[in-house]
Amino acid sequence: MIMTAIDVNSDLGESVGGNPVSDDAAIIEVVSSANVACGFHSGDPHDIARTVEAAAARGVAVGAHVGYRDVPGFGRRFIDMDPAELADEVLYQIGALDALARSKGTAVTYVKPHGALYNTIVHHEEQAQAVIDGIRAFSRELPVLLLPGAVAIEKAEQAGLRAVREAFADRNYDPDGTLVSRRESDAVVSDPDAVAARVVQLARERTLLARDGSTIDIDAESLCVHGDSPGSVELARRIVDALQDAGIEIRSFL
Amino acid sequence: MIMTAIDVNSDLGESVGGNPVSDDAAIIEVVSSANVACGFHSGDPHDIARTVEAAAARGVAVGAHVGYRDVPGFGRRFIDMDPAELADEVLYQIGALDALARSKGTAVTYVKPHGALYNTIVHHEEQAQAVIDGIRAFSRELPVLLLPGAVAIEKAEQAGLRAVREAFADRNYDPDGTLVSRRESDAVVSDPDAVAARVVQLARERTLLARDGSTIDIDAESLCVHGDSPGSVELARRIVDALQDAGIEIRSFL
Amino acid sequence: MIMTAIDVNSDLGESVGGNPVSDDAAIIEVVSSANVACGFHSGDPHDIARTVEAAAARGVAVGAHVGYRDVPGFGRRFIDMDPAELADEVLYQIGALDALARSKGTAVTYVKPHGALYNTIVHHEEQAQAVIDGIRAFSRELPVLLLPGAVAIEKAEQAGLRAVREAFADRNYDPDGTLVSRRESDAVVSDPDAVAARVVQLARERTLLARDGSTIDIDAESLCVHGDSPGSVELARRIVDALQDAGIEIRSFL
Amino acid sequence: MIMTAIDVNSDLGESVGGNPVSDDAAIIEVVSSANVACGFHSGDPHDIARTVEAAAARGVAVGAHVGYRDVPGFGRRFIDMDPAELADEVLYQIGALDALARSKGTAVTYVKPHGALYNTIVHHEEQAQAVIDGIRAFSRELPVLLLPGAVAIEKAEQAGLRAVREAFADRNYDPDGTLVSRRESDAVVSDPDAVAARVVQLARERTLLARDGSTIDIDAESLCVHGDSPGSVELARRIVDALQDAGIEIRSFL
Repeated sequence: MIMTAIDVNSDLGESVGGNPVSDDAAIIEVVSSANVACGFHSGDPHDIARTVEAAAARGVAVGAHVGYRDVPGFGRRFIDMDPAELADEVLYQIGALDALARSKGTAVTYVKPHGALYNTIVHHEEQAQAVIDGIRAFSRELPVLLLPGAVAIEKAEQAGLRAVREAFADRNYDPDGTLVSRRESDAVVSDPDAVAARVVQLARERTLLARDGSTIDIDAESLCVHGDSPGSVELARRIVDALQDAGIEIRSFL
Repeated sequence: MIMTAIDVNSDLGESVGGNPVSDDAAIIEVVSSANVACGFHSGDPHDIARTVEAAAARGVAVGAHVGYRDVPGFGRRFIDMDPAELADEVLYQIGALDALARSKGTAVTYVKPHGALYNTIVHHEEQAQAVIDGIRAFSRELPVLLLPGAVAIEKAEQAGLRAVREAFADRNYDPDGTLVSRRESDAVVSDPDAVAARVVQLARERTLLARDGSTIDIDAESLCVHGDSPGSVELARRIVDALQDAGIEIRSFL
Repeated sequence: MIMTAIDVNSDLGESVGGNPVSDDAAIIEVVSSANVACGFHSGDPHDIARTVEAAAARGVAVGAHVGYRDVPGFGRRFIDMDPAELADEVLYQIGALDALARSKGTAVTYVKPHGALYNTIVHHEEQAQAVIDGIRAFSRELPVLLLPGAVAIEKAEQAGLRAVREAFADRNYDPDGTLVSRRESDAVVSDPDAVAARVVQLARERTLLARDGSTIDIDAESLCVHGDSPGSVELARRIVDALQDAGIEIRSFL
Repeated sequence: MIMTAIDVNSDLGESVGGNPVSDDAAIIEVVSSANVACGFHSGDPHDIARTVEAAAARGVAVGAHVGYRDVPGFGRRFIDMDPAELADEVLYQIGALDALARSKGTAVTYVKPHGALYNTIVHHEEQAQAVIDGIRAFSRELPVLLLPGAVAIEKAEQAGLRAVREAFADRNYDPDGTLVSRRESDAVVSDPDAVAARVVQLARERTLLARDGSTIDIDAESLCVHGDSPGSVELARRIVDALQDAGIEIRSFL
């Protein structure tokens, strides 16, 4: 299958106390979807509002990057929450971000769980259902950005929500289509040229070369890039240039 | 002027960590307006959702009880915030609560600033404007519950928002219509019969006996009662009984 | 074996935003050991200082009631923390409380993990070790109050720390000496007379009647009571009266 | 007067959620005193512990950088706290940091208030007294780093604490010895050569050229440098090189 467009998403709005985590200004130039922090794992209302305003100005879609309430841990630690509490925390975050977004002339148009919550709902049935319940309580029209194979994808689709699968530009994959664990030495593809070639292949053919050299199908409508280090911003620009040079449009999945 | 109805409002949804601050179940039986905490001075999303659900079930209006972000201080301490930051914090809180409220079949229908924020915008021009800006960014249709004489009333009306003035059932007033300072020994009227008589007079005639025995006009459409101690719940019930015995309806100001 | 004294411990200092969680004034009259919150699961420095002052005034031992950093969850939710981070969080809490305690003429003389942390280190090897590491980094002289059978007891003893086992006055036990799960209908012994008889038997003989009527050994040097509801305060007083009537001294395990 | 040594201090340990605020590794190479965040305005226990360990390894003095409890505002906003509460918050922070420091073989040896608290106690009598009370409750031997002219200097000295005055390398001064307000265009000296010349003059002669060209006395035993941007780290290195080239030792004021 030949695609002529792919979505590129990145995490934004994560500053705390006025101290930025990523180079939002640089990243917002290259993505089509902004996963905007909602204040639970990171992000202050005023900084969030400025990020949302910049996204609106460039026509970048605003997603609610919902996370565990854990600023000290940046949302990277699993918390064994009661599902009913988690659902309401997800709903609270979407509502808060949507209000800020609407004041800047845009709105929340999708949801992406963050960090440990994203990873937990790959396999944790109750929390996956809770996240979907929280989203659906806000709207039945919000797509959810998830890892291919996540149990949350089933929960979303059962609830009538669209699940959008994403791929990671700089990560190696096992032949079964799962990510190589970060504990392994070849988890990350660090050569920018290799990354560029991979994303073009992914966007064009929905395939990637797995770790063992075999070609595997990757069912992804969005590509995740990072902006939290000088190197990552450079890589994001390189990826976007490669896609555009190959005639592939960077466009929201909406 | 003869009124046949008055609004009775109270602070609810302020539990933290599952530990309740007031007897919400008892208070929700007697009020027409619930000032529901939004998580900044107090309140967790799930407990807030339950409070909102109870309010919806009894037809009690839900107001956003917006406060400074200060759980350790319960929102009782002035914070010298940048107005633009404050406006976005107010907007964030309203959006979050409204999402929870809509999931329970109701919505935020007014705003009441809490604690130190309420007191600050009696006189602080920039923060008063910021609160109004935050509310108006959410909706131009939300009334704001404020202290008579507050500079925020002017700001609200200039912005096209309805300002609703409230009175305090158990507080003494100076002849100029301001509250007797809590530093003075006669700040609070503690005799329940006296309080009951005062609220009936207030609801019927919009007047009160001031501290010096003179009759003063009190321009209030709502009456604030408390539920954070056994005594205060008793007093709230006593007030509501007195109003109803006098043929005065307890009804939201909306 | 006949004991003539037993320690009685309870959780104190857990107010947030000035709103008390338990009746500290009543409980401090009846216990020999105060597990004082350190600000992570609950407790503000000034309220903590007042609790510590009251404990000092009555000669009640001050223990650091260390917990996960989770005020919204009251420390009742497992957090999958990195052990090195957890150890430093434990150490931070003990140091903070000890400074407050010393300013009131006392000091932290033991540690009791709180809530989900207490339960987690019954079985979680890495977090158990982390808690012990954090305590030992502060002092090699602090006993640790733990559930009999907890893996943390082994870790404490391997590290040269004294482990003190506690029993729960109002909980039923299975014949193997473990607590009946709270999911079961007979988890709690609710009859005050039955509770009183049990604690006297426990203090005198270190035995209890298990759920099936058999007599089991309970290796406990301390008895945990609660003060977070009117009923629990009454029960605590009843327990202490029963012990004293039986000639058993309420005395710190130190 | 000729000095042969001066202290250089900088703010460290301010990361939140694992995201660094300043380049601690670079700054710790050039300073003699590390003002280490205590978790209230910023800083997590484990990151703080690593910063303290690095300071200990290089013989850099550890100071408690106490601030208002305001991570979202990075301690840059005045909070109108009750003095008794503030004193206990200061004490709590020092105790927590000291425990972490002792676990790494060092200890808190001075205190520097942070951000809005630092600026508030230049003029706010009650909060100045509260900060001093909190420090003194921990130890009577801890010097306090303050702005020349601050009312907190008087309070410190009345309480028997040593007050240490600091100067700012890159700030212009008015002829009366106060800092030029940041609202003015020449508040900051941006030319690195000019800054280098100023710090050498300051260290040697305890004088500076004021904004109007006059020579003024600056009574400072410590020099504050920053590390929160690439430019500031460069400037800090430049300052330290200039001092060393001039034969002036960088040495703690202790």
